[in-house]
Amino acid sequence: MPSYKAPLDDMRFVLNEVLDVAQLSRIADFSQVDKPTINQFLEEIAKMAENVLFPLNATGDREGCTHDRETKAVKTPTGFKDAYQQFCEAGLTGFACDPKYGGLGMPIVLNTALSEMFCSANLSFGMYPGLSHGAYNALHEYGTDEQKNTYLPKLVSGQWAGTMCLTEPQCGTDLGLIKTKAVKNADGSYAITGTKIFISAGEHDLTENICHLVLAKIEAADTPAGIKGISLFIVPKFLPEGLAHNNVTCGRIEEKMGIHGNSTCEMNFDGAKGWLVGEAHKGMKAMFVMMNEARLGVGLQGLGLSEVAYQNGLNYALERVQSPPIDQKGEHASVTIINHPDVRREILGIKAAVEGERMLAYWISLQLDISQKDPDEAARKKAKAFVDLLTPIVKAHFTDNAVENTNSAIQVFGGHGYIKEHGMEQFNRDARITRLYEGTNGIQGLDLIGRKVLKENLLPGYLRLLMQDLFAAKKNGVSLCLLWPVARRAGTLCRITLKLRVRALFGTLLRRMSFMRDAAGMSTDYYKLMSLVVIGHMWVKMADTATQKLAANPEGGVRDFYETKIKTAHFYMKKVMPQTAAYSGAIGGGTNALMDIPADKFAHTQTTIGA
Amino acid sequence: MPSYKAPLDDMRFVLNEVLDVAQLSRIADFSQVDKPTINQFLEEIAKMAENVLFPLNATGDREGCTHDRETKAVKTPTGFKDAYQQFCEAGLTGFACDPKYGGLGMPIVLNTALSEMFCSANLSFGMYPGLSHGAYNALHEYGTDEQKNTYLPKLVSGQWAGTMCLTEPQCGTDLGLIKTKAVKNADGSYAITGTKIFISAGEHDLTENICHLVLAKIEAADTPAGIKGISLFIVPKFLPEGLAHNNVTCGRIEEKMGIHGNSTCEMNFDGAKGWLVGEAHKGMKAMFVMMNEARLGVGLQGLGLSEVAYQNGLNYALERVQSPPIDQKGEHASVTIINHPDVRREILGIKAAVEGERMLAYWISLQLDISQKDPDEAARKKAKAFVDLLTPIVKAHFTDNAVENTNSAIQVFGGHGYIKEHGMEQFNRDARITRLYEGTNGIQGLDLIGRKVLKENLLPGYLRLLMQDLFAAKKNGVSLCLLWPVARRAGTLCRITLKLRVRALFGTLLRRMSFMRDAAGMSTDYYKLMSLVVIGHMWVKMADTATQKLAANPEGGVRDFYETKIKTAHFYMKKVMPQTAAYSGAIGGGTNALMDIPADKFAHTQTTIGA
Repeated sequence: MPSYKAPLDDMRFVLNEVLDVAQLSRIADFSQVDKPTINQFLEEIAKMAENVLFPLNATGDREGCTHDRETKAVKTPTGFKDAYQQFCEAGLTGFACDPKYGGLGMPIVLNTALSEMFCSANLSFGMYPGLSHGAYNALHEYGTDEQKNTYLPKLVSGQWAGTMCLTEPQCGTDLGLIKTKAVKNADGSYAITGTKIFISAGEHDLTENICHLVLAKIEAADTPAGIKGISLFIVPKFLPEGLAHNNVTCGRIEEKMGIHGNSTCEMNFDGAKGWLVGEAHKGMKAMFVMMNEARLGVGLQGLGLSEVAYQNGLNYALERVQSPPIDQKGEHASVTIINHPDVRREILGIKAAVEGERMLAYWISLQLDISQKDPDEAARKKAKAFVDLLTPIVKAHFTDNAVENTNSAIQVFGGHGYIKEHGMEQFNRDARITRLYEGTNGIQGLDLIGRKVLKENLLPGYLRLLMQDLFAAKKNGVSLCLLWPVARRAGTLCRITLKLRVRALFGTLLRRMSFMRDAAGMSTDYYKLMSLVVIGHMWVKMADTATQKLAANPEGGVRDFYETKIKTAHFYMKKVMPQTAAYSGAIGGGTNALMDIPADKFAHTQTTIGA
Repeated sequence: MPSYKAPLDDMRFVLNEVLDVAQLSRIADFSQVDKPTINQFLEEIAKMAENVLFPLNATGDREGCTHDRETKAVKTPTGFKDAYQQFCEAGLTGFACDPKYGGLGMPIVLNTALSEMFCSANLSFGMYPGLSHGAYNALHEYGTDEQKNTYLPKLVSGQWAGTMCLTEPQCGTDLGLIKTKAVKNADGSYAITGTKIFISAGEHDLTENICHLVLAKIEAADTPAGIKGISLFIVPKFLPEGLAHNNVTCGRIEEKMGIHGNSTCEMNFDGAKGWLVGEAHKGMKAMFVMMNEARLGVGLQGLGLSEVAYQNGLNYALERVQSPPIDQKGEHASVTIINHPDVRREILGIKAAVEGERMLAYWISLQLDISQKDPDEAARKKAKAFVDLLTPIVKAHFTDNAVENTNSAIQVFGGHGYIKEHGMEQFNRDARITRLYEGTNGIQGLDLIGRKVLKENLLPGYLRLLMQDLFAAKKNGVSLCLLWPVARRAGTLCRITLKLRVRALFGTLLRRMSFMRDAAGMSTDYYKLMSLVVIGHMWVKMADTATQKLAANPEGGVRDFYETKIKTAHFYMKKVMPQTAAYSGAIGGGTNALMDIPADKFAHTQTTIGA
């Protein structure tokens, strides 16, 4: 049976020692944040994750959700409803929400630690409140006062849940193809008609009501074609006044590879009553508020799954006795497999990924807090640029890694990893969705290189920070062996980006877009290369703090912690960083290698070859 | 719904044009092999794979095997028994078996094409006859005449099946820890007692009898400790004389991540009657006959799954319309996603892997035929060296790729890839086992670097062949852009190997084994690096043949085939080969980065960090 214990040590290290999150108390909204509060909160959340949610993870996977074809109701797995009740009672649905609507008003960075623990403990469960929070964000930013007063208190308390309804059978990425339509009613509301698929938590039995945020096209002469004609609507399952059942039902739930405890619904809107959120035809803008938060959230899902896979892989490696040490002559007793170098490679690979990701996730979340609440506009703007640039990295890299890391942990178990009862294969199946939803990772790559790097030119600001951190670390006595690999690969990234930007500049002047073909052709290699550099930067930050702490000559477990941290940083630089060469090499290979074969020449044609 | 069509074009290209398998007819045993026979055989097998086995793949996954606790019987999914009957009637269980026992005596290289198709169509099904063939091989090589006459005709006809019983709860890799014991009976047979786990096809309803090949320790004063005291036994479910039920039963079947159509059994031997196969205490040697063939077989499973994932990913990319071309200014209609560079990258990545692997698998199988049947001893020896060296590459690289490629194909489908009805996620779940069984891929890496490279020094012979092929290709007009990347990376491999061999030489002289720690520390990176070089070599061979064929100026689909082949070779060199830099870089990072952290410093300890 798998186990989970929240990595509180490492969380406190990042939150209190590297980032010093308590400094947020300088911002009025966060005056209550101090170290004891942070630590108490971490421990309470950890208890709920470990004792309430994790025990429901494997049973939720086995039992899954069930859909009643008659009543259209969806039942979540045994125990989910009770757990959700406890979750609400602890105030966690409104943890980072506006106190005006009943929220606790805690910083996002702490909510991130909360999310990580819940994703480790039970991803399927964590998605229900996660989606509600996305709906909260969109309404909080774009809703009218009336909408806010109607919906937000219920979303904050967890009595009501929320969803995002974007995808339709014919479109996922390309939302310009949306067919769901909205016809204006006399009372100013809209009648929404259409079918949405892949709606996570679209229907369930956890809450009294479910508020769907739906993308649709207004049927009107002035609605622009494609993506520019999409509007966002709030469509509640039960109408707020009188709670009559709206014309929205769950047609079926999907059978999936994993996340069986979360219902993935086909939602049918049949003239359902909805209200416009934000301006007409500006739905994509509002949707992106939810989407960007959701992308960071999906990254955290990846981190959470990698962490729990790591813990179980490590525990097995520390217990399983198999084969004598390879470097000893003669007869020797078999040893625990953590002593075998190739098992070490798997274990350390996950450890280095997880801790680097945690650092990045918490740092970016802190930037998100600053970008929203800091009284200084320049600070807000600077922080927002980091968030915008690195959101696709968090989404794509953490989730690629989640599949990778959960696979590595299975590998540590050998054949036992393939057996359901050990629980390792569930982590891998659950992880697989994270590379797909909220924009496939390919789309993240395009967002990064097309929008964030080429259009908004956000890279130089980040690289400046990186260089500052490298110099600071050097001053603090961090080994050059940890700094040089990051500096060198940041240089490679810079060179590749500069070359592309120059081409883009000429392309734009000459109105020729072929540079976009190259950008798209390298987009995945680019985000993978950049991810390794960014995580390298995070390792430098951690090594810097650990080096400073070691200077005070701590003892026992504390000393071990810092020393292990620095050794893991060395592992990252020596064994993980070299992967950058694969990506820069592939980028150097150019785009023609991708596009030379005509599309119709791929398929197996039955010719007379070798006949 | 997924589909499968055997890639006959590419198979004929490799078998008839690159390898010219019909030349085997110079060997007396293969006098019947000519091109028409090969082609007819391919078409017949293809029909069975496409029409009989593939339709049972998804249903087999859903239904799985069931175990009756009372009778201890295992029922295979609906349709498997009928399909198996057809399989036997077509003579396929004895396809590559000795005609003396009723086999068709066909070369292994053709059996490999057969296996590939069956693994694409239905891996869970293909494993049943696959395991029987392993048992056939071990008995054919090590059995007494009486054993051969008793068992082989039934195994060849498919009336009886076979298994390999190695793993026990406390040992998989480390078979020295085996506890199953064999006590000699008065009649010369042995009473076998113990529990074996993870026995694929250990119990099922496809055949009249199941012959277990079991590793056990003889209870005797002179039995050596550990791995050197293991013997191999044949333990039939029903005793050949009289067919009384032997004391061997299936205690339970495992719930697994995938291959649900194949029963994975816990087998309990309770004083079961068995007979020694080969010499006492030499069981590992005999087992390795089965194991080496099984490792090639598992590699083919990886290839088969990659191929079927490729076909379905490609079909979807050719049909799914989403988003306008990225390099066009202004409004454009959405296009099929094969036109988007990043989707191309996924598709071509699988294509280049699959075709390279097919070439290697068939070439190695041809070497296996030569190593067993060629009248010239030098030719046999040379061919065997290639097989020995490259078996771990086939097993590890093809199966790593299978997980990778089936994941890529899911990615092409976006969210739809995660839904069961599209069938893509099953390929990935089924593929996951291949990295684990018949020795995890980590063990393959150790076998390659420890035994094949350091101990048996098989690399130089292979590199000589590689250089010859490069020169021949150059003479035939193959572009230097295809040759140079292979030559360069072969040089890197050579340099790394030489350095390690020198250390090993001094280490052996000084009786210090620390070089083995380094070998083990780099073993995975080493096999991955070498795999890319070897597959590059295969691409050169294919490009060479295609270049020569194009010189004859063929037209239509045939011309397209050769041109696409050469373009795919360019893709491999430009976009896949650069991955070698990641592995050579990681090897350069050394072993200390892996071993520096003491084993007891990994776990999260609850310290006062950040408290």
